[in-house]
Amino acid sequence: MSDKKRLGEFELIERFFAPLSGEGAFGLKDDAALLKVTPGKALVVTQDAIAEPIHFLPGNPPDTIAKKALRVNLSDLAAKGAVPTGFSLALGLGEEWREDWLEAFARGLAEDCRQYGLKLNGGDTFRTGGGPVVSITAWGEIDPDHYRSRLTAQTGDRLFVTGTIGEGALGLLAHAGKLPSLSPETGAAMERRYFVPEPPVAFAPLIAEFASSSMDISDGFIGDLEKLAAASGFDAEIAAGDIPLSPEVREILSGADIPAEKALETALTGGDDYQLLFTVPESHVASFLEKAQKTEFAVTSLGTVRQGDGKVVILGDNRVPLGFASTSWHHF
Amino acid sequence: MSDKKRLGEFELIERFFAPLSGEGAFGLKDDAALLKVTPGKALVVTQDAIAEPIHFLPGNPPDTIAKKALRVNLSDLAAKGAVPTGFSLALGLGEEWREDWLEAFARGLAEDCRQYGLKLNGGDTFRTGGGPVVSITAWGEIDPDHYRSRLTAQTGDRLFVTGTIGEGALGLLAHAGKLPSLSPETGAAMERRYFVPEPPVAFAPLIAEFASSSMDISDGFIGDLEKLAAASGFDAEIAAGDIPLSPEVREILSGADIPAEKALETALTGGDDYQLLFTVPESHVASFLEKAQKTEFAVTSLGTVRQGDGKVVILGDNRVPLGFASTSWHHF
Repeated sequence: MSDKKRLGEFELIERFFAPLSGEGAFGLKDDAALLKVTPGKALVVTQDAIAEPIHFLPGNPPDTIAKKALRVNLSDLAAKGAVPTGFSLALGLGEEWREDWLEAFARGLAEDCRQYGLKLNGGDTFRTGGGPVVSITAWGEIDPDHYRSRLTAQTGDRLFVTGTIGEGALGLLAHAGKLPSLSPETGAAMERRYFVPEPPVAFAPLIAEFASSSMDISDGFIGDLEKLAAASGFDAEIAAGDIPLSPEVREILSGADIPAEKALETALTGGDDYQLLFTVPESHVASFLEKAQKTEFAVTSLGTVRQGDGKVVILGDNRVPLGFASTSWHHF
Repeated sequence: MSDKKRLGEFELIERFFAPLSGEGAFGLKDDAALLKVTPGKALVVTQDAIAEPIHFLPGNPPDTIAKKALRVNLSDLAAKGAVPTGFSLALGLGEEWREDWLEAFARGLAEDCRQYGLKLNGGDTFRTGGGPVVSITAWGEIDPDHYRSRLTAQTGDRLFVTGTIGEGALGLLAHAGKLPSLSPETGAAMERRYFVPEPPVAFAPLIAEFASSSMDISDGFIGDLEKLAAASGFDAEIAAGDIPLSPEVREILSGADIPAEKALETALTGGDDYQLLFTVPESHVASFLEKAQKTEFAVTSLGTVRQGDGKVVILGDNRVPLGFASTSWHHF
């Protein structure tokens, strides 16, 4: 590669990533980062990776790839009740990597560093045999007693979800040209939700304060609810009409582009929502809702969880259980 | 993929990786890990990734791939003075992944978890468009005043290196069949050093106690020394004869398989050493050496560093500076 007019590893880190670094990262010139933790706090650490062409495609805007790679991790932290403070990035680039791709990728990352008040604390650049791979490890501080796992919901707790469901999965369909009846503006907004999810990062303190269990929705609302139910040991029965959907998703459900049942299945099982699914003990629901209403985030009650072993039933019209071919996106 | 008789993501984590998890990892059933830090300590965090076919090849033993992916991170931690306590793993698998590959990979990881007293605290499995990608983030605790960066050597400090140099790079040549004169045992031992490096993990407390600057040698002895010298701002002049070489490497240097100069260049610039390069203030050298001699690790003095800006000169016979085509392996 030395015959090509391209940046070496040192130069590309210096140019694109060192400006994003903070205290304890030594300008990304060192082998590691030094992470000080506030006395009395613990760290929540998560690591999620995305790769071409599984999670994004060669033509996708590189700034959105950077943002999605970071935000899927921020979504995990928020679900645990942690506000993110830093991250490291292992960025794999294929033989054909280009500087303009990298520049746009770094610009997207820089925008999100500003938006979320984050610093890049280290990592690695490496060559891959295929396309780009983006592996991010992110962390945030938490009072260790307030870490919210998937395992600790109690029978009788109230189930909640933030935001609305289905824009990510239907946004991908919009991007694929399969929703031609949408106005261009609506279609673009839906695609945007797929490419750049908006996890409720600032909702984390309420999760830490009130939730009895929590996870983020990445692989599909129903499938992830099944995971939460299995991990905590509860059953849930939810009316499809109670699941929060945006006006755009409702428009698609009642539109002619795809059958309503297929659209609903995509919305509820397609994934890429990056909303939070969590339980709150009934005795705290009133104070939780009072505080939640003062945030920018919508929360929807999905009823009370019952003793069980992970069964999730979605009820359609006349309380008839709906069937789905698959309840979530499968990685393998 | 659902028509294939293969494990899903949940099952493969449960079967292969959950047994390696520890406290705060929730059996790898949660979105993140909870990491408690000893009061008064800080965390050293590092993230390095390796990918097929850049850092390993399809036929390589999967247990060695797991060990190398972990150990390159442990090497970074040791260089900073930190004893590792945990790690997370983002494991990317291509379409053609096989259970027996994964089983051997997990077995290698389990062996190293035992050897280094480590727990797997989280991570991700994901699909790649090519071959496997192994991205590990590792951490260890440190007294924050004892973190040893590359940036803080002082003029007049003594330069040291652990272990011996060149087995990794020459081990790769042995593996490629380019050192036919070696006995099968020696060749196999050299290959082993390439596939499974042995960073001096237990040497970390001495780095923390005595070093004024430190880094690990991964890309090549000379190139990495240049990086240390540039980061700290010193020049170094080293007699080639002072650089510690194993009997096996000396055998190759005086053998007929490759010219001596080429063999020396490979040893000093080829990388994959995972030894530590560090400086100690002259006033602490005696007490450092006294303690170092009580460990299992060899340390070699390479002389005193001078005021400068990163120039490294290697002197051959009659103190004639040696020239090298490249001083380190380039990632890009």
